[in-house]
Parts: sequence; structure tokens; C-alpha cells
Amino acid sequence: MDAVSRIERALAAALDHADGPNAPPRLGKAMQHAVFPRGARVRPRLCLAVAAACGEDDPAAADAAAAAIELLHCASLVHDDLPCFDNADVRRGRPSVHRAFGEPLAVLAGDSLIVLAFQTLARGAGASSRLGPLMEIVGAAVGAPAGISAGQAWECEPPETVDLGEYQRSKTGILFAAAAMAGAVSAGAEGGAWRLLGERLGEAYQVADDIRDAAADPEEMGKPAGRDLALGRPSAAISFGVSGAVERLEMLAAEAVAAVPPCRGAGALRGLIRSEAKRLMPASLAGSVAA
Amino acid sequence: MDAVSRIERALAAALDHADGPNAPPRLGKAMQHAVFPRGARVRPRLCLAVAAACGEDDPAAADAAAAAIELLHCASLVHDDLPCFDNADVRRGRPSVHRAFGEPLAVLAGDSLIVLAFQTLARGAGASSRLGPLMEIVGAAVGAPAGISAGQAWECEPPETVDLGEYQRSKTGILFAAAAMAGAVSAGAEGGAWRLLGERLGEAYQVADDIRDAAADPEEMGKPAGRDLALGRPSAAISFGVSGAVERLEMLAAEAVAAVPPCRGAGALRGLIRSEAKRLMPASLAGSVAA
Repeated sequence: MDAVSRIERALAAALDHADGPNAPPRLGKAMQHAVFPRGARVRPRLCLAVAAACGEDDPAAADAAAAAIELLHCASLVHDDLPCFDNADVRRGRPSVHRAFGEPLAVLAGDSLIVLAFQTLARGAGASSRLGPLMEIVGAAVGAPAGISAGQAWECEPPETVDLGEYQRSKTGILFAAAAMAGAVSAGAEGGAWRLLGERLGEAYQVADDIRDAAADPEEMGKPAGRDLALGRPSAAISFGVSGAVERLEMLAAEAVAAVPPCRGAGALRGLIRSEAKRLMPASLAGSVAA
Repeated sequence: MDAVSRIERALAAALDHADGPNAPPRLGKAMQHAVFPRGARVRPRLCLAVAAACGEDDPAAADAAAAAIELLHCASLVHDDLPCFDNADVRRGRPSVHRAFGEPLAVLAGDSLIVLAFQTLARGAGASSRLGPLMEIVGAAVGAPAGISAGQAWECEPPETVDLGEYQRSKTGILFAAAAMAGAVSAGAEGGAWRLLGERLGEAYQVADDIRDAAADPEEMGKPAGRDLALGRPSAAISFGVSGAVERLEMLAAEAVAAVPPCRGAGALRGLIRSEAKRLMPASLAGSVAA
């Protein structure tokens, strides 16, 4: 089974656990809306790619780690879209969760997806001594002091006090780092060696997002463009200009390729990273990346 | 060390892990505001009381379970107070988190507290085979389909479709059940035998809260009264009248006492439950409870 099919199956199974005949009907629908149809699934694909590169020996643990990380990513998008943050009406070309189901259910769907992520880890890796280390990695990537909720909290600090690198590391980079590290740990390998690869990929992804926000066609993105400037948010495309940001993306992708630790599947993983880096560019800028 | 001191120490240690020199400063402050100064800590006290009754042999796991459950309770209060739910200005006699720190940080503080709860479990029980079962119990109590976020989601369904018992079980009862079960599991005992005790106590607590909301002095409660009626929420005091709700509370407390499974510390635990049931009544109604 290919990686994308494994991820979709693991996410569908997780969401099945969160629904049932005695559940409030609209909560389950709001959670489904947040997770399906699929986005790029870039974090769980990274997780499974690293697990494979490390000689995966526990597919249930790898699937659980990948699904948990994607559920947490989806939860963060639901809360990030809320009126008190980005007030985004559209996500992946459809109404955002709070536009489709109302603000209360968007808050609760996000909360429930966070919990479901940890339940999914416990179900897939609960019998293994790897559960504790996996929880440490995933928890650190999403909570305070340096996970994605902390990254979002930097948007609540005075802009002049925010370090762009620190902000992007916690807003995006750390969940990529966790995806890579959790993939390794799910396969019985040491996680720390994979942090740098994930961080570089995550920073590349954030820079690419900034470029798309500043330069791309809204229809191509599935959400409105120009939000960072309108909302006064930190952005590499605003700080360095679009061409400076493109150079930065190329550098980060090259650093990610160089950061693959020695392992059985290193060659295939480097190829995957190069093709991801190309995919990250808006179509209007494609072809300029040589990672 | 007494139970309350252990709980406060475990919570303070958990929050220390969530802060640091590179963290966004106001997020940590918002999380502290949500957890301290302490409320009644009734759930973690139940957890430690059951662990003790079961012959506690792993205090770190019991402390972690107790702290995790209280962190999840605090997180639910922060989100429950948000403008899109109760729009509560006051909690425990102080401004609610969103009134003190703004709505974005209230959402993020709640999210971070949920994550911190699972991190706390992993830190305290990560080396033990009890981590998986503890996570299953705690996760089921806070997520979908039947945990406290599902309980809150029933408030987003048409009122005529909501079963009061189901609503109260998931809104409050299940976290009490989890507190009792997690206390038992942290001590190596079987959790299921403790569910009924927790459910009855939780339902008693919810009924007491409904009575206080309908009948109590706002200063005594530390938050405004009469919110259930104003917001059209399910309430035992509205369904049965205050005196009917008091009778129901007495019955539930008696059932909780009867539900204590055979164990070394059963006598002490029954005494604790009786004194809790008295404490749950507003001062204006005290003396009528004979549990």
C-alpha cells in the first residue's frame, strides 16, 4: 500500500473512533470536514518516508505517528482560521470549519482533533515502549513553550519583539521536525538525528507559503492571497521580497537534502525531498527551484 | 505530603515545562491564569484518593494522572468561557482568560493545556506499561464521541434532541469517571470497577452546579448566577426545580458511596465522598444533604 493510502486509511480509522450513534452528530461532521478531503499530507508523508528510510519494523506505530501529526496539523488550521485569528472564510477551496459549522463547533472540533491525535498514538503504539518517546516528540511540537500553539501565540506579541526565525520554527518547522523524528522513533531509530532535516523542510514550507500568499493566484491556493500583509503577520516574502524568499527556499531545500542522516533509504529520501521542493513553488514561479 | 500539596506541586511542575526564556511570554501567563490560584481540585483529589484506596505503588504516575485530568478540566473552562460559548467575564472571582488576555490567547492557552495534559502523563508514566491504558481513559474522557468536548458540542444541537442524562454524563460525569479509573490504573488496579463511582460523583457535581447556578449567591460562586436559564442550557434545577434537584443530588451521593468497590481504603474513601457531597451544596441550602 502506498504512503498516501496508508495515511488516508489511518486518518479514516481515527475519525471512526471519534464518532458513534450516541455522539453529537455535528461534532463528528465538523471533524471530518477539517480532515477530509485531503490536503497535501506533507507532514505524514515525511513521517512515513523517514520510517521507511530507517527500515520500518512497526507499521502500526508509523501509521499512528503519521496520522497523529496530520490530525494536529488539521486542528491547528481549524483554530488558526477562527475569527479571532485569521478570520478565514475559505480553506482548501471550501468553507472553513467555523463558516460551515459555526464558531463553537470549530473550537470543539479543534480540541477533539488534538485529543484524537494522542488517542491515535496510544492505540497504534500503546503496546510498545516507543509510545512514551513518540508522545514527547509530538507533544513538544504542538504545545508550549515552542510548539505550534506557541508559534501562533507569537502573533499575539508586539511585532517588534518577534524573531522571524523563532516564529517560523515554532509555527511550522517544529511539526516537520516532529514528523521526521517520530518516523525514525516509530521504526526504532534514534530521533534526534532527524531533527535538522525536518526543521529545514518545515522552514522551506513556511517560506513557500509566504511566497504563495504574496505572489500566487488565490484559486491555485484554495484560500485568499495577501493575508500576511493585510494582517501584519511576519512573512519572509515581506521581509526579503519575493525573489529573496525564493532564494531562501532554494537554500533551505538544499540544506534539507544535505541533512539526511546515513540510513538504508537515504537516496530515495533525497529524491523525495527534491520533488517536494519543486511542488512547493506556485506554478507561476515553478522552474526556478534547483534543489 | 497531603493530596492538595501533591496536586499543586504536580501542576506547577507541568506548567514550568510549558514555559521558558524563548516562549511567547503572554501564552505562559494565560496558562498560569487558567490553572492558578486553585479551584476545588475535586477531580485530581478523587484520582489520588482512589489511587491511595487501591494501595498506590507509583506516586509519579498517580500525580501525573491527577495533574493531567485537572489540566484538561482547566482547558475546558477556558474554552467554555469564550464569547462563542458562555461569554463569561468572570471565573473563580477573577476575569476569565479571554477577558484578561484576549480571545486568541484563550484559544491557544486551552489548546496548550490539552497538549500539556498528555505530555504530563507521558513524563510521569512514560516508563511504565500503564501509560497506554491511562491515555485511553483520559483521552476518551475529553475527546469525541463521548468526552467533555462532545458534551459541550451537545450545546450546539437543537435542545429538543438533547438527552439531559447523556449531556451531563459527557459534560461532567465522564471526567470524574476518568479521574477514578485513572487513579486505580495508576496504582496497578483494574479501572473499570471504578467507573460507576466516578459517574455518580460527576453527575452529583453537575447537579450541584445547576443548583448553584439557579439558587446561589454570585459572590459565593465566583461567577454570575442564572446563566443556564439565560442561555437556554439543559439544567437539572430547571427540569426538576431546585428542591427536586437537591433530592437528586442526595440520591447520587448515596449511590456514589455505595459504588466504592472492595479495596483496602474503602472506609476512608466513603467518608471523603460524604464530606464532598456536603461541600457541593451552596451555603444557603447546606444542611439538607444527608449522603
